[in-house]
Amino acid sequence: MTNSAQDLAINAIRTLSMDAVQLANSGHPGAPMGLAAVAYTLFAKHMHFDAKDPEWANRDRFVLSNGHASMLLYSLLHLIGVKELDLDEIKKFRQWGSLTPGHPEAELTPGVEVTTGPLGQGISTSVGLAMAEAQLHARFDGMIDHYTYVICSDGDLMEGISHEAASLAGHLGLGKLVVLYDDNEITIDGRTDVSFTEDVLKRFEAYGWHTDRVTDGNDVDAIDAAITAAKSQTDKPSLIAVRTVIGFGSPNKADHSKSHGSPLGDDEILLTKEALGWPYTEPFTVPQEAYDAFNDLATRSQEAHASWDAKLGEYNASNLEKHTELTRRLSGALPEGWKEKLPSFAPDAKGLATRASSGKVIQKIYEALPELVGGSADLAGSNKTFHKEFGIFTHDQRDAQNVHFGVREHGMAAAANGMCLHGGVRGFGATFLVFSDYMRPALRLAALMHTPQLMVFTHDSIGLGEDGPTHQPVEHLMSLRAMPNYFVFRPADANEVTESWIAAIERINGPSCLVLTRQNVPTYDREKLSTKGDASRGGYILSENPAGKETPDAIILATGSEVAIAIEAQKTLLETHNISARVVSIPCWKLFLAQDDEWQSEVIPDAVTARVSIEAGTTFGWQQFTGSKGISIGLDRFGASAPFEELYAQFGLTSENVTDKVVSLVK
Amino acid sequence: MTNSAQDLAINAIRTLSMDAVQLANSGHPGAPMGLAAVAYTLFAKHMHFDAKDPEWANRDRFVLSNGHASMLLYSLLHLIGVKELDLDEIKKFRQWGSLTPGHPEAELTPGVEVTTGPLGQGISTSVGLAMAEAQLHARFDGMIDHYTYVICSDGDLMEGISHEAASLAGHLGLGKLVVLYDDNEITIDGRTDVSFTEDVLKRFEAYGWHTDRVTDGNDVDAIDAAITAAKSQTDKPSLIAVRTVIGFGSPNKADHSKSHGSPLGDDEILLTKEALGWPYTEPFTVPQEAYDAFNDLATRSQEAHASWDAKLGEYNASNLEKHTELTRRLSGALPEGWKEKLPSFAPDAKGLATRASSGKVIQKIYEALPELVGGSADLAGSNKTFHKEFGIFTHDQRDAQNVHFGVREHGMAAAANGMCLHGGVRGFGATFLVFSDYMRPALRLAALMHTPQLMVFTHDSIGLGEDGPTHQPVEHLMSLRAMPNYFVFRPADANEVTESWIAAIERINGPSCLVLTRQNVPTYDREKLSTKGDASRGGYILSENPAGKETPDAIILATGSEVAIAIEAQKTLLETHNISARVVSIPCWKLFLAQDDEWQSEVIPDAVTARVSIEAGTTFGWQQFTGSKGISIGLDRFGASAPFEELYAQFGLTSENVTDKVVSLVK
Repeated sequence: MTNSAQDLAINAIRTLSMDAVQLANSGHPGAPMGLAAVAYTLFAKHMHFDAKDPEWANRDRFVLSNGHASMLLYSLLHLIGVKELDLDEIKKFRQWGSLTPGHPEAELTPGVEVTTGPLGQGISTSVGLAMAEAQLHARFDGMIDHYTYVICSDGDLMEGISHEAASLAGHLGLGKLVVLYDDNEITIDGRTDVSFTEDVLKRFEAYGWHTDRVTDGNDVDAIDAAITAAKSQTDKPSLIAVRTVIGFGSPNKADHSKSHGSPLGDDEILLTKEALGWPYTEPFTVPQEAYDAFNDLATRSQEAHASWDAKLGEYNASNLEKHTELTRRLSGALPEGWKEKLPSFAPDAKGLATRASSGKVIQKIYEALPELVGGSADLAGSNKTFHKEFGIFTHDQRDAQNVHFGVREHGMAAAANGMCLHGGVRGFGATFLVFSDYMRPALRLAALMHTPQLMVFTHDSIGLGEDGPTHQPVEHLMSLRAMPNYFVFRPADANEVTESWIAAIERINGPSCLVLTRQNVPTYDREKLSTKGDASRGGYILSENPAGKETPDAIILATGSEVAIAIEAQKTLLETHNISARVVSIPCWKLFLAQDDEWQSEVIPDAVTARVSIEAGTTFGWQQFTGSKGISIGLDRFGASAPFEELYAQFGLTSENVTDKVVSLVK
Repeated sequence: MTNSAQDLAINAIRTLSMDAVQLANSGHPGAPMGLAAVAYTLFAKHMHFDAKDPEWANRDRFVLSNGHASMLLYSLLHLIGVKELDLDEIKKFRQWGSLTPGHPEAELTPGVEVTTGPLGQGISTSVGLAMAEAQLHARFDGMIDHYTYVICSDGDLMEGISHEAASLAGHLGLGKLVVLYDDNEITIDGRTDVSFTEDVLKRFEAYGWHTDRVTDGNDVDAIDAAITAAKSQTDKPSLIAVRTVIGFGSPNKADHSKSHGSPLGDDEILLTKEALGWPYTEPFTVPQEAYDAFNDLATRSQEAHASWDAKLGEYNASNLEKHTELTRRLSGALPEGWKEKLPSFAPDAKGLATRASSGKVIQKIYEALPELVGGSADLAGSNKTFHKEFGIFTHDQRDAQNVHFGVREHGMAAAANGMCLHGGVRGFGATFLVFSDYMRPALRLAALMHTPQLMVFTHDSIGLGEDGPTHQPVEHLMSLRAMPNYFVFRPADANEVTESWIAAIERINGPSCLVLTRQNVPTYDREKLSTKGDASRGGYILSENPAGKETPDAIILATGSEVAIAIEAQKTLLETHNISARVVSIPCWKLFLAQDDEWQSEVIPDAVTARVSIEAGTTFGWQQFTGSKGISIGLDRFGASAPFEELYAQFGLTSENVTDKVVSLVK
């Protein structure tokens, strides 16, 4: 083997990966070693990525979907000159406080576009990156114009989410999405044929993708040619299967699952370096030539960056309005006065479903925030997310805000993540609350990545009625509330809907969802109810105790549609039992718990231990608000198929039950 | 249109569906109307299903994956003579207490094999039904020998889980699985081409399926021929795309999404009946000829049933041992003395990971319970589920207990459901706890269906260390505990592992999971610790307060690996602070809460308000045990990538912290 700069660069990826895994005494050396030449070719010959400014808006995106191969990415970022990723940081692989965690974390490490590790997420999030690029490209006259490259593994393609994402990408004809598939024939449990014998290329052809195959994963020219051909396919996304050898170079562990997830061992590393013709036995040695092999990348990218900056300046001159919008959107700032455009709702005893008020709000947000792009997983009419005046994002119409995701909840959530991560676009999705279960891994990544993805979850309880227990969420509110950094809003009326939407949109360091009813709820008269606070505090006094006592006799806690039951009970309690109860609405628990102690104590004073909560979902978790002496009314079983009024009565979600429970606590 | 018995039967399905949806004033008429001839053909000409004994073990299974078309199934079950589904029950469609809920519920209605509605689940669960059939067929000399038929929709095939299930089914060559795809070109958001343009047949060919197309969904002969051809494909599962017309017969709503999810309206129903040539305007009128059209089904099925009964009698004579095993397995009874074969573990301060003790237990369960069939989603070595002496279930070896599911968590969970629903097989799966998120919809259906599916979830906390936050569960324990009828076991040591496995196996009315550590935990000396109770009570006194006080000074509550921290704190508290604390282990919350009040009060007496919980996950939910005055130590954020000892220290999951908190409460 000749030690050309190219060989040295490729083997530097391999040796850094081996050495870092060995030092950490944990990690995955096999995939980076197998993929080294693929990644080298992509970066050295194709990528536009300015290592001096990893956040440059028009960079090509690169996503390592098989996140366990993180050392591939860290090695690359080091070799191409991202300054934070110096050798010291590489040596801290998988250690506390490092920029080089076990799996790549976008929120942490410059140059990491997407947090990956849970398989299937990277490739699916990339669909959202490519959608954002297409939308911005169309909207801003080609000012945003780049490719999205992905490396993925067998595992990514076995996951169901890859089907949803790839089918959607094919449907949308995302021609600037190029996926390199690490077809190494090895999986953790052995050779892939123990479980995976599908014809992957045929499958992707069925999705409408361009496909190609490279038979030697070390053949830089062949990989280069395949990427070039893929880039020229502007109407279709591309999948290139590259036959690689896991653990390439290791005499005793290559092409075997034992090189997948464990250090090779010091002896095997020495043997491997020898086999690779690597001239240095000392760990973490990188010759200058290996760095120099990426000079073309640097030159190409810096030129492109400079030229783009100039073009942006011209855009300012030629189209000030769009330039202003583009720069605002890329900065993530919200436009002046956007909130004032949202509707407020007059008191109304009949009211309307919160999904309906949300629909009205969304329409105004679409108008005020052209960066809002999304839609429903085939339930647009039910979710009230579709507003045709803002166009449908299709193969032929890119400058549009409505997306028909199809029945692909998980792919939708990942795409929404990708749109947000891209910048310039705020991705959102919608479905029934019960189907939030289908997308949890992508919601969790949003929370972990601090991605301000938005979800509209309607049909939020047994209140959906006849569709029955398969469609009735019970545990979902709690299981979503339990997720760190995930904000769940369950507004009680139309005005809480507007306030919740504002809070969700303004929340830029994490995802939020709006949980909405199918059935009507009243719009409350806050003046009459002596309301103190509003949904922007997470929890507040919607209705002060009607006798105006300094300390209420009891507190009724509720969210969403059950607030109406609480208000009814409040009335009965005073009239029939001379008990003056306060009604507290807590549309967003995390937001309420983030308020200062003073506010929390004011809303739920320690002195009042007679507390009853009501929510049409599991009672699990309410104890933090009701305290040891309180009572929670809810649904600790699955629902049933019947008209919703009957279900509420059968399950004791009634003002009579609330009244009885409050009386039992006060007496 | 001639009114042959066949036509009347097909139109009876349509009119019953229209009429029932109209009376309920909600539901989905379009799909049953489009699919009526498909379902008729399948039942009248192919199915072996004895309406007088819907539980007959060797019946063909039929699964309606697009569960919203429930009236198709109820109409069929009525027409073929399942006695519980009389016309009165049909008229109670979607009402409280009926056998005809909005979506089919296996736990409720005779003849419903799988609870469906959440899309993709039915087709995926069917893979498990077919796997169980194949396993039993091989194990018991062909005594079990039937087909599994599925009707599914576009929506089912858009869902990611359909990819996992279909790829697995193709890999395993499940030749007796026949799927009829309702290719009606309509989706809720409009025509399917708004979001779904993949080549479905090509995709399934890529999975190794036999595929076929019927161009007219009312052509009984063509459907019949396609099913016959599919049945003859014994090496491959089959997908038959049938071009149907949603809402067939409705002059104004056929072939349009408006017939999908709403009643047609009285006027349109009359017009439709006229267009169909249906002679009766009165709703719910079914002529005798429509029932008679299914006489062949009855004759064929009753003969097959009788002949099978005779064969079973012969099997008793020819092979008593297998006959006994088969009848036991089909009855769901556990063999005598099986529990005694499981290991118990001697006290050991070093101990072992609970995943490792679980591996030892599984090996013995495999031996004692040959009905246990399952494995891991490509993490067999990590999950400790693989025991090669029990064979690998493949295309060529069906009488085996290990399954390589591939990286297909969701498909695995659905397949495990199907295996359990079939009877004779107890399906289980395994992955990392964090990836339970990928399978939640299937876990929820198991809980709803009372299906005793089992899951092994290892790597259960930040204790997995360097893989970092993408792989570290935080909220998962709580979000699984929140699910009704789902039992979560998180054992603290090897003996709790054995006890938890016993409780999980003996639980036949719902699913359970075992949540297990990657890292070692001690095996406790229950004698020394004055243990009272064990994991079979869900929660118990693992270590009585060492001063032997009648009422302990404090209670430390913990699960899993954090029990060791509690035990350490207990020691320090006595030695350094003269505080005598009890350590309570609660491996299964729901099981503990299902014990009588006496036991619960004995373990956690009201009198002791100084309570500290510790668990390496979110604290959300612990308040029900710690009470208003208690303190919960946990992790209300995502984890990080580092060696686990460092993570525990950084996040305050330490005996020092427990000690401090207990002292603060007692003092």
